[in-house]
Amino acid sequence: MNGLPGSPRLDFASDNHAEAHPAVLAALAAAAPGPAPAYGGDRWTAAAEAGLRDLAGPAAVPLLVFNGTAANVLGLSVLLGPGDAIICAEQSHFAVDECGAVEAMLGRKLLTAPAPDGKLTPAAVEAVLERCADVRTPRPSTVALTQATELGTCYTLRELADLRELCDRRGLRVYLDGARLANAVARLGCTVADIARFADALSLGFTKNGALGADALLLMAPGIAVRAPYLRRQQGQLASKMRFLAAQVGALLDGGLWLDNARHANTMADRLAAQLAPLPGLRLAQRVESNAVFVELPRAATDFLRPRWAFHLLPTGPARLMTSHATARADVDGLAEEVRRSLR
Amino acid sequence: MNGLPGSPRLDFASDNHAEAHPAVLAALAAAAPGPAPAYGGDRWTAAAEAGLRDLAGPAAVPLLVFNGTAANVLGLSVLLGPGDAIICAEQSHFAVDECGAVEAMLGRKLLTAPAPDGKLTPAAVEAVLERCADVRTPRPSTVALTQATELGTCYTLRELADLRELCDRRGLRVYLDGARLANAVARLGCTVADIARFADALSLGFTKNGALGADALLLMAPGIAVRAPYLRRQQGQLASKMRFLAAQVGALLDGGLWLDNARHANTMADRLAAQLAPLPGLRLAQRVESNAVFVELPRAATDFLRPRWAFHLLPTGPARLMTSHATARADVDGLAEEVRRSLR
Amino acid sequence: MNGLPGSPRLDFASDNHAEAHPAVLAALAAAAPGPAPAYGGDRWTAAAEAGLRDLAGPAAVPLLVFNGTAANVLGLSVLLGPGDAIICAEQSHFAVDECGAVEAMLGRKLLTAPAPDGKLTPAAVEAVLERCADVRTPRPSTVALTQATELGTCYTLRELADLRELCDRRGLRVYLDGARLANAVARLGCTVADIARFADALSLGFTKNGALGADALLLMAPGIAVRAPYLRRQQGQLASKMRFLAAQVGALLDGGLWLDNARHANTMADRLAAQLAPLPGLRLAQRVESNAVFVELPRAATDFLRPRWAFHLLPTGPARLMTSHATARADVDGLAEEVRRSLR
Amino acid sequence: MNGLPGSPRLDFASDNHAEAHPAVLAALAAAAPGPAPAYGGDRWTAAAEAGLRDLAGPAAVPLLVFNGTAANVLGLSVLLGPGDAIICAEQSHFAVDECGAVEAMLGRKLLTAPAPDGKLTPAAVEAVLERCADVRTPRPSTVALTQATELGTCYTLRELADLRELCDRRGLRVYLDGARLANAVARLGCTVADIARFADALSLGFTKNGALGADALLLMAPGIAVRAPYLRRQQGQLASKMRFLAAQVGALLDGGLWLDNARHANTMADRLAAQLAPLPGLRLAQRVESNAVFVELPRAATDFLRPRWAFHLLPTGPARLMTSHATARADVDGLAEEVRRSLR
Repeated sequence: MNGLPGSPRLDFASDNHAEAHPAVLAALAAAAPGPAPAYGGDRWTAAAEAGLRDLAGPAAVPLLVFNGTAANVLGLSVLLGPGDAIICAEQSHFAVDECGAVEAMLGRKLLTAPAPDGKLTPAAVEAVLERCADVRTPRPSTVALTQATELGTCYTLRELADLRELCDRRGLRVYLDGARLANAVARLGCTVADIARFADALSLGFTKNGALGADALLLMAPGIAVRAPYLRRQQGQLASKMRFLAAQVGALLDGGLWLDNARHANTMADRLAAQLAPLPGLRLAQRVESNAVFVELPRAATDFLRPRWAFHLLPTGPARLMTSHATARADVDGLAEEVRRSLR
Repeated sequence: MNGLPGSPRLDFASDNHAEAHPAVLAALAAAAPGPAPAYGGDRWTAAAEAGLRDLAGPAAVPLLVFNGTAANVLGLSVLLGPGDAIICAEQSHFAVDECGAVEAMLGRKLLTAPAPDGKLTPAAVEAVLERCADVRTPRPSTVALTQATELGTCYTLRELADLRELCDRRGLRVYLDGARLANAVARLGCTVADIARFADALSLGFTKNGALGADALLLMAPGIAVRAPYLRRQQGQLASKMRFLAAQVGALLDGGLWLDNARHANTMADRLAAQLAPLPGLRLAQRVESNAVFVELPRAATDFLRPRWAFHLLPTGPARLMTSHATARADVDGLAEEVRRSLR
Repeated sequence: MNGLPGSPRLDFASDNHAEAHPAVLAALAAAAPGPAPAYGGDRWTAAAEAGLRDLAGPAAVPLLVFNGTAANVLGLSVLLGPGDAIICAEQSHFAVDECGAVEAMLGRKLLTAPAPDGKLTPAAVEAVLERCADVRTPRPSTVALTQATELGTCYTLRELADLRELCDRRGLRVYLDGARLANAVARLGCTVADIARFADALSLGFTKNGALGADALLLMAPGIAVRAPYLRRQQGQLASKMRFLAAQVGALLDGGLWLDNARHANTMADRLAAQLAPLPGLRLAQRVESNAVFVELPRAATDFLRPRWAFHLLPTGPARLMTSHATARADVDGLAEEVRRSLR
Repeated sequence: MNGLPGSPRLDFASDNHAEAHPAVLAALAAAAPGPAPAYGGDRWTAAAEAGLRDLAGPAAVPLLVFNGTAANVLGLSVLLGPGDAIICAEQSHFAVDECGAVEAMLGRKLLTAPAPDGKLTPAAVEAVLERCADVRTPRPSTVALTQATELGTCYTLRELADLRELCDRRGLRVYLDGARLANAVARLGCTVADIARFADALSLGFTKNGALGADALLLMAPGIAVRAPYLRRQQGQLASKMRFLAAQVGALLDGGLWLDNARHANTMADRLAAQLAPLPGLRLAQRVESNAVFVELPRAATDFLRPRWAFHLLPTGPARLMTSHATARADVDGLAEEVRRSLR
């Protein structure tokens, strides 16, 4: 069930290719029978929201949505004042992968900063502020971070604190795209709350981490929650049968399955990186700090691997190898073996 | 599992309160294991799209989305030229229930027409055109119909043909909101294609008809499909793990389950109406042509029923009683009995 | 120079048809020679803004724009939070005359209330709030008034105070469309500040009152001005050669010309109404409280007048006769005479 | 009247700082007396539109607007299909100077290409198409050129033909920002039509070329004009007293004043460049092909000049010296002399 027969193996192409976790399916089956209030008035939603508050802090206001783009758009729409612009890393998912959703749905300009390792720095933010200092550019009011980043790296808590300090000083809000926040939490050995406290709003992704399709937005700043339920519906993200989003989230929160899943994915990435790093003629392009391995391969190696394994090649060169909750140790070892062969 | 203990019974409050069909859950479980291409490159999506073309015609281009608001916004965004406006019935779901999604996401003005039975007429459309004849009003370019309507009625094929003829003559496109199209097909004894051929784009709802959450947009007019995949992603409606939308749709298409479900819901509405209609002091407010019974009740009857059953009261007075694929004959008879008691 | 030869006389068709005041042209000629800073850094802009603060109060923040639609859109964009909706009278200019500018440029839904005399009442506002009480409708956050109204009437200061009190109580902001505010000020014998204090933002129109084309937005609520200059540019309303908007406003502010012009227009409307009111077979449809006379005429009279005079007929029946700063007494008497003839 | 006393001289800071041409003021005074139809039904508008068709070709559809941002937004809104994106040079005015107007008012993403001399090339356009080849990026459908460019250079007719050929081949439309088209026409010794035939829509600026504030949009592609009048009103760009935009345009078209003005500005730029080019320690950063001279100066020279003359410094270093219809020969020689002093 791995793509078409004879097609490349999908295992490391994307964590979006991964299967749904059996516990999630079981929870859906359990939630299905009988009528339940629509639009979030059900007990599964109440439980999932409570679980999310347990993670992020009692003042967090959680909203379930269908996917990560939706969480980003909803989160930014809550934070941005009229006409404001967003400062983000040039690789941000919503800057390059979401088909202009922020521009189209929110009418906002993205002010991008270079981020060679995927991470914004205070200096990079300051540089954007400096070049956007009059009405020729829309007013930057929100800095958007991604944790873990698009390049598989993680901001340390110290780095997040420094960025937050800058933002407070310059009157900027912080949005954090946490499509892979679980992997960052697993890597840093911290809690969701440890990261969430630096953000005014953040997403927490479940889709890539074992769900069929469900992500959460968490509103942290006081007073910003009043409009969010309206915006969610306006943006087409209010599930009528919300219990079926909530049951997925509930299953993953239950017993910390979300964290186990993320830890496993990270461990598989580490295992892969450990086997690849020593190989001559190959270079890890980024530090491995979540569930992604970016590796620069000789052209011949790439040509050898492409018909066998599906993976992305960045425009800048490196191959991206993603692991997930469902990645098997044997698959990692199998891929590493084929990379070794490709280099001969 | 019917709301909180002691709370009103939900059975007739909304078809969105209904359970998911077991066949849908089984299909999800079957689709879950192993990796699969993301974003619709999987075989479940291919199968669901083929099934939808079987229903609507070989030239139809289907796109799966998360819910009905999304299908409406996506469908309208494909049809509308720059700055164009929409003509619709005053009760249209996107005019009164979707929190201004069309205005917010598409920047469009809705030009509403009165529709006492939920159905637009050629005369009503002409009247809007007449009052919107210069640049003070945005140019109406698309007529949006709902089938079955918000008031539980159905356009006949003759009525649809007449509206289409008017629209062709006046250079207008036709969008059809088919959140409950299945119920209309079941009622009219026609096919989806019989209705779809009058529309340039239409939605086909599964969420209210047994799914957990999945709706389809069907593009019928030649040449309009090129932008739709971009718009779907831009609007936050591209499921990364699309197989889990597709498996739901596949399960409902399989063996005509979608039509069986709709037939059952309609039959239950008929059964309810048949028991209520003869009662003195009560009046059916609309013809029962799908899975909704609108009934005018004396105030005392309403007061008696409200603590026992959840149902909507229209601003204009009537109570709305919805049936679904999961409505049991005994529940219908039970409700009818309580209505009889309420009238004593 | 009154339309094409043989075409109907334009004098009472619209105050937008009126000539520019000679003092405005003189001011433009005086401002023209030599270089001056662009985008509002010039001394004419400084003077016009100072003059506007003299009218509206020292805390008012004025912004010049090209026309009334622009002032409305800019003013509302400053006041509305994400996704919020607007409560307004059904005849509001931006609801029926501005081609969906608010929907298109701001993505907002207008929640209209009936207003038989053009004026919103607290009860009408409350009724909208009641029918918009959950996420199915976008959150109303701003009430938009028009002073003088589209039907030529004026809110009294007492009525404005009552509406403001309601809005404060319900957490609503107030926008006031003052395209003809001068006429209201002249009628009420009050100051601009007397009205402006009830609004969070308001426009003050000069185009209909002697300018070539220039209107002002006045921001009254503390703290809302920071984004306005950005929004003005974003919305295409920042004049590069701002001195030529400012010189127009300056000329009209100078010596109270704006108020003299409005008084004259009002007086001409009164003179017209006084001659028409006693005529049998004719009825004033609205009280004459600014520079508009709405009059119900027999069909035969309308048919007699239409080839001779340009005027609007409301969909609801009455003819609209507008006066302006340039209306001559003899023209009023001439029109009145022809109306008398039309009724014979 | 050159800024504040003691402040730097404005003469070369921007063509937006230039005075209005006396012929324009005379035309306004002539158009002012008496009533005239609003919203473009007047004879000045008819004459200006006829004059614009004389320039651009009989099939051109002209629309007057208030400024260049408005013309860009309106022109792009006419050309772009739902969700489409725009390919443009990184320095495009609407990409960096218009406060995100395209994003905010049209919800569009700008796909920028490097253009060291301000000019897009077919190769640069192809490179954008290549990196935007799936739904992760909105569909590019329109290439936007600027003529003369932001860097004072001009596309040759050959270069425009090559870009048009590419766009035809790839199904792309062409928008041309002609805020300084007059200067390009003067430089190339061609006609407006010679350039306009390569565009589907283009703007023709008058504000920087002697008007108080008036620009034109010219629609060239057949069939695109139907929505433009609606969009103009929707975007707040329909002047109620249109005669006062039209009279400005008419005065500049009359006897080719627009071209004389542009020729003069170009000649002054040439004269300035001729004096600066031979100076040691100074480098012209761009070819001088319109009314701008970009020159790299030593830091000491810049420091010497800044308190005496207002001019822009690009982020990349060079100073921008703009000439206009009102630039005097003596001012050019005076500035050149001071630059010489600054280099000593």
